[in-house]
Amino acid sequence: MTSAILAQPAAGQSGAVIETQTHPGQYRHWKLRCEGPVAHLIMDVREDAGLHPGYELRLNSYDLGVDIELADAVTRLRFEHPEVSVVVLTSGKDNVFCAGANIFMLRQASHPFKVNFCKYTNETRLAMEEATRESGQYYLAALNGVCSGGGYELALACQEIHLIDDRSSAVSLPEAPYLGVLPGTGGLTRVVDKRHVRRDLADVFATLAEGVKGQRAKEWKLVDAVHPKSQWSAAIARRAQELVKPGRPQRGIALEPLDKRREADRIDYSHVTLSVDRAARTARLELRGPHTAAPLPAEPAQAGSRWYPLALFRELDDALVELRLNFETIGVLTLHAQGDLDKVLAVDELLARHRHDWFVREVLLLMRRTLKRLDLTARSVFALVEPGSCFGGFLCEPALAADRIYMIDDPHQPTALALSPLNNGSFPMGNGLARLAQRFLDDPARVAALQLDTRPRFSPQEALAAGLVTAAPDSLDWDDELRIAVEERASLSPDALTGMEANLRFAGPETMETKIFGRLSAWQNWIFQRPNATGERGALSLYGEPASPEFDPRRT
Amino acid sequence: MTSAILAQPAAGQSGAVIETQTHPGQYRHWKLRCEGPVAHLIMDVREDAGLHPGYELRLNSYDLGVDIELADAVTRLRFEHPEVSVVVLTSGKDNVFCAGANIFMLRQASHPFKVNFCKYTNETRLAMEEATRESGQYYLAALNGVCSGGGYELALACQEIHLIDDRSSAVSLPEAPYLGVLPGTGGLTRVVDKRHVRRDLADVFATLAEGVKGQRAKEWKLVDAVHPKSQWSAAIARRAQELVKPGRPQRGIALEPLDKRREADRIDYSHVTLSVDRAARTARLELRGPHTAAPLPAEPAQAGSRWYPLALFRELDDALVELRLNFETIGVLTLHAQGDLDKVLAVDELLARHRHDWFVREVLLLMRRTLKRLDLTARSVFALVEPGSCFGGFLCEPALAADRIYMIDDPHQPTALALSPLNNGSFPMGNGLARLAQRFLDDPARVAALQLDTRPRFSPQEALAAGLVTAAPDSLDWDDELRIAVEERASLSPDALTGMEANLRFAGPETMETKIFGRLSAWQNWIFQRPNATGERGALSLYGEPASPEFDPRRT
Repeated sequence: MTSAILAQPAAGQSGAVIETQTHPGQYRHWKLRCEGPVAHLIMDVREDAGLHPGYELRLNSYDLGVDIELADAVTRLRFEHPEVSVVVLTSGKDNVFCAGANIFMLRQASHPFKVNFCKYTNETRLAMEEATRESGQYYLAALNGVCSGGGYELALACQEIHLIDDRSSAVSLPEAPYLGVLPGTGGLTRVVDKRHVRRDLADVFATLAEGVKGQRAKEWKLVDAVHPKSQWSAAIARRAQELVKPGRPQRGIALEPLDKRREADRIDYSHVTLSVDRAARTARLELRGPHTAAPLPAEPAQAGSRWYPLALFRELDDALVELRLNFETIGVLTLHAQGDLDKVLAVDELLARHRHDWFVREVLLLMRRTLKRLDLTARSVFALVEPGSCFGGFLCEPALAADRIYMIDDPHQPTALALSPLNNGSFPMGNGLARLAQRFLDDPARVAALQLDTRPRFSPQEALAAGLVTAAPDSLDWDDELRIAVEERASLSPDALTGMEANLRFAGPETMETKIFGRLSAWQNWIFQRPNATGERGALSLYGEPASPEFDPRRT
Repeated sequence: MTSAILAQPAAGQSGAVIETQTHPGQYRHWKLRCEGPVAHLIMDVREDAGLHPGYELRLNSYDLGVDIELADAVTRLRFEHPEVSVVVLTSGKDNVFCAGANIFMLRQASHPFKVNFCKYTNETRLAMEEATRESGQYYLAALNGVCSGGGYELALACQEIHLIDDRSSAVSLPEAPYLGVLPGTGGLTRVVDKRHVRRDLADVFATLAEGVKGQRAKEWKLVDAVHPKSQWSAAIARRAQELVKPGRPQRGIALEPLDKRREADRIDYSHVTLSVDRAARTARLELRGPHTAAPLPAEPAQAGSRWYPLALFRELDDALVELRLNFETIGVLTLHAQGDLDKVLAVDELLARHRHDWFVREVLLLMRRTLKRLDLTARSVFALVEPGSCFGGFLCEPALAADRIYMIDDPHQPTALALSPLNNGSFPMGNGLARLAQRFLDDPARVAALQLDTRPRFSPQEALAAGLVTAAPDSLDWDDELRIAVEERASLSPDALTGMEANLRFAGPETMETKIFGRLSAWQNWIFQRPNATGERGALSLYGEPASPEFDPRRT
């Protein structure tokens, strides 16, 4: 431990567990109101309901607790309210839309917490964009007041931004001038890569603490429309109605609470168990195969939120968030899948056959988001293909997301690994590539040669020859080889591993999404470590204090 | 100033000036031997000739001084030896190719110096790849011994890698396991994005300190060929001959020493002056237009290295490196071009007309590299279009690389800015886009609408309307507006500006090149700041010491 570690209560270590499951009945900061095809998602942050003590969430500023509710609402809208085609995101407070991430929260947060908070926020915003693009739920930001920093970054994640023209409401990114940090939850990237604001205007904008308002905000493309206060409500309502799309499914399914039991070093779900060994800095994530692969009802949605693949991936998603937030010292995650491979492949076939049904499609999209969350989880991931394991089709995809795959080669207990057509396009990474395609970046023909249509199964030696697994030790060597690999990994610098994995996992093209997690987040994380931001005389540390920051002037 | 600032002698502030101009007669670390179409570039580092005191360059390890000579050789080969089509890069020492960047040098270096050292090294390696791709000078790495860390990263920049098979020579990237940092000068990126090593094998390789040798190195695609020691020289010679391409120009031009006069706060070149105001943290970079635009000789290369556009950009390139290394506290660079716009455009026409001539082509490529260096210079750049200025065609390109362009609107002293066809494709950025195309990412038709074929000129109001300049203040406001803009900029956090500019300057696609400077370098810079690497108990700090590093185990 070093002096750079700040005062954040040690989440996950001393009882300060962060619970990431919620539902609208529990929301403290948001109101979700559905009126036929239009949903109103209203930010109305309770000042006194921060996730940690020590700060007040004034002016609709947010912390992780606010974003957990937003993420929940975005997911529920897709499953529970498929009839919605327009989501109007606005504020419940007068004259302020959102003041951004709470600065006093940021200041007291440890570096790892800051980084994980920003990552989660980014994932939530990308989920809003995915809902617009893939599920036809169009997000419209109705900025009914001042919108600064993370507030404007939230608006940027919407497909369309409307700003009230009341002579005072501006959009702004004051992070660099006020705090000495970046608009790092997508802001800089979306301004130039999504909205295509001209780079020099973006440069002026991102250094202009007071922001830009009215007609100029529209001219610079920072917003899509401005409306005078007198016409505001009518203009937003009219625009929402214009955007309504007919032909939506009319009945959703309830996302029931997860079956989740927490112990000190273990979380059990229906189909998933996460268990940690704090001393060894390892975690074991077990995914269990289905009991049955019964056909879907005529109306697939009637399968409900307990349908195996949906339940499994909701649990996996929650386990990954738990790991990040509540078990921060765990370095190596081993991934296991235990169950009946035949049944897994039968479920895989159901998913493929019904993939155009709205509900099954939403299940596949939730899987995709969960797998991206795994790609972005800063822990070394080794998938272990052991006797009784069932990595196949959609359930092989977490293994393909792992840094390494080890497969035991034991003639007495044969193991197999299976692929399916879903592995080639149903779960693209953030960079747009299927994990198999990225694995064989040198030669796209190798994916075709796997003949995924046949749902092929691979013995250890076949998997090794096909390049699907990293190593296939025999049963005599297995225990030692695995033990050494895990111990060695856990002994390396956690930071070097994070940086290494962030580079090796994302070979190939970059997209706006990967630029946010690569270019933008990496720079922001650097700045979060710099004395100019977080040192005793740094700008973030001194925000709101009478003293001015003092900068090391050397440009780097 | 904070405790994080290390003991690097303050380059550029106390006489410890780094001179970046050299020539083969002065090389201490490299031998360049040209034999017809094959050049031998032999690394033979002098242990006692480090750039700074305090470390010995053992085992062909390198510091910035070694790389300055390499960069010089790569450039000279293109201009002085165009007959060369194969460059064999090897070591002059037995049993060792290169041990990578010198760790004791890295340990004592300040953070800004580390970052600038890595950036320069990356630029040199990209220049080798550009020489292979654009100039038909094919780099072949002949690894005649151990090749680790930065040594292997240097090999990765070659088009082809041959490794001696002597039972001990391996390639390795031991940065993560030994030093707690990344193979950050292109290593991780090139392994998966250039050589397409499978991601899980890359993961194993980058954590295996002893590296991979012989046939396995070839199977994993880490090298292209292995040869037994007994056949080594013959195999390399044969392969070099196979790669020789006929039809090369037979006579190059000498790159004469730059006309460069250094004073305390000023460097004067023939066509460029860099002057700094340390108190204000600003620099003024003046580019001067040509005296004449005389036609090129029948053999254009006879114009020699004093030909205006070549001399100008060699000087500009040197000035940018000077700024980075020797003036690290300067935050804002104002860019000026003074001269006759007609003559600039006449030279621009010469460049365009003769662009297929090998020499003119090399001049254009050198301009391209220099402009990329400007894109990557971590200083805020404002271009000022003032009375008497001559930003036009190729000489408008530095302005298009600036963060902002200010153009005075003075009816008594009309100013103009001009474009030419060269602005649309002759100087692509690292991301492959012309700077004009990136400026108008929203609408490619806007570039076409500029009718570059006509070499159009723009008055201040026309330039403003066309989106070419950020602001066009009138002569009454000019001084105040500029003063405030520069002062404000210089007052902001140097780190926040670096991160902001690194994001806003690179909208649009990413390439392997931009991934190296974006994703990889940003993570490496973060790690260089982390106590796990550079803290008192960090792995880089303790390398070679009896004590083991102690890590903050929290994954971030």
